[in-house]
Amino acid sequence: MTTQRKPPSNATRRNEASRRAILAAAFELVQEVGYAKLSIEGIAARAGVGKQTIYRWWPSKGAVLFDAFLMLSEQPDGGESALPDTGDLEADLKAVLRATVEELNDPRYDEPMRALNTEITHDPALAALYAERLDGPMRELKKGRLRSAQRAGQLAEDLDLDVAVDMIWGPLLNRWLQRAGGLTPGYADSVVETALNGLRPRR
Amino acid sequence: MTTQRKPPSNATRRNEASRRAILAAAFELVQEVGYAKLSIEGIAARAGVGKQTIYRWWPSKGAVLFDAFLMLSEQPDGGESALPDTGDLEADLKAVLRATVEELNDPRYDEPMRALNTEITHDPALAALYAERLDGPMRELKKGRLRSAQRAGQLAEDLDLDVAVDMIWGPLLNRWLQRAGGLTPGYADSVVETALNGLRPRR
Repeated sequence: MTTQRKPPSNATRRNEASRRAILAAAFELVQEVGYAKLSIEGIAARAGVGKQTIYRWWPSKGAVLFDAFLMLSEQPDGGESALPDTGDLEADLKAVLRATVEELNDPRYDEPMRALNTEITHDPALAALYAERLDGPMRELKKGRLRSAQRAGQLAEDLDLDVAVDMIWGPLLNRWLQRAGGLTPGYADSVVETALNGLRPRR
Repeated sequence: MTTQRKPPSNATRRNEASRRAILAAAFELVQEVGYAKLSIEGIAARAGVGKQTIYRWWPSKGAVLFDAFLMLSEQPDGGESALPDTGDLEADLKAVLRATVEELNDPRYDEPMRALNTEITHDPALAALYAERLDGPMRELKKGRLRSAQRAGQLAEDLDLDVAVDMIWGPLLNRWLQRAGGLTPGYADSVVETALNGLRPRR
């Protein structure tokens, strides 16, 4: 980094601390009481701030929860995270999908993630925001890893990378949302192998 | 059919007519007012029955809506529907997925299907019922079609048919739930081709 930044003022630091306290409180509270019973009042009380502080920054509890997810996805150093690239695509994808399975099975994330997905399902504006701020950047990372494999001749030249991403990550998310079967490391491996090899016999 | 059935009594016929009127009313009403504002009172008024008639048969509005979906999936002759099997697996799957795309884009189904999916996401008991009564039988039909192709040597011998079903149908449902991109006939075709051929180069 060559640009010099002015050190943040005390007021900026205090605002940032409040913002983080509010987002952490929202994330904790939705786990405990569920999304239906989550309220701005409850978040304010848990974060030790006034209700009006929250309303100054966010229009709704959905917006607060969304930013809580954004905070979780931020890297501590402000940099971009990337998917592992050891050169072995199959092993890298299995590692990533196994980590996703672990996250989806983590009780701390269960209720907040279901709430976020429900809000997206019913709210086109939030869906657009989600696509732009959370899913979009994540999708670019996934496509970046696939593109590197494609350049190495490990993936078909004419592959539509968006369809490929849907095919690798879609089944896990679906199974989790619909509670349609066990989400195990073995399932993650099987999805990766089946997506790479395809359903037809390989000759 | 060789079994003889007793003709239904007038009371049975009346009950069946009320049941169908209630389910049709619930399905219509959720399109108009959304799931959050759907109420047993509203369904009763629309169907022209008393509230207590509905409560006698269903514990909640979610249960009514679920049965409305079951009614939609029933065949008029009480038989099992099957997926098309012309011998050309790729063409058959494309036809089925294109029909699914059309259904998911139909404004009449949009709100009821989003409501059902939301309820399943948050309610493990309803998810179990859904798996048993709706998704399970549908999944068997899909696996039946794939099994027939597998026997014909068109699919890999060691293919896990559950993973295959997730890979073909998962991306569409996901894209629809997350509003994550256009749901077009071209997308349906691309999913089928990519799933069958796999992501790797085919030599």
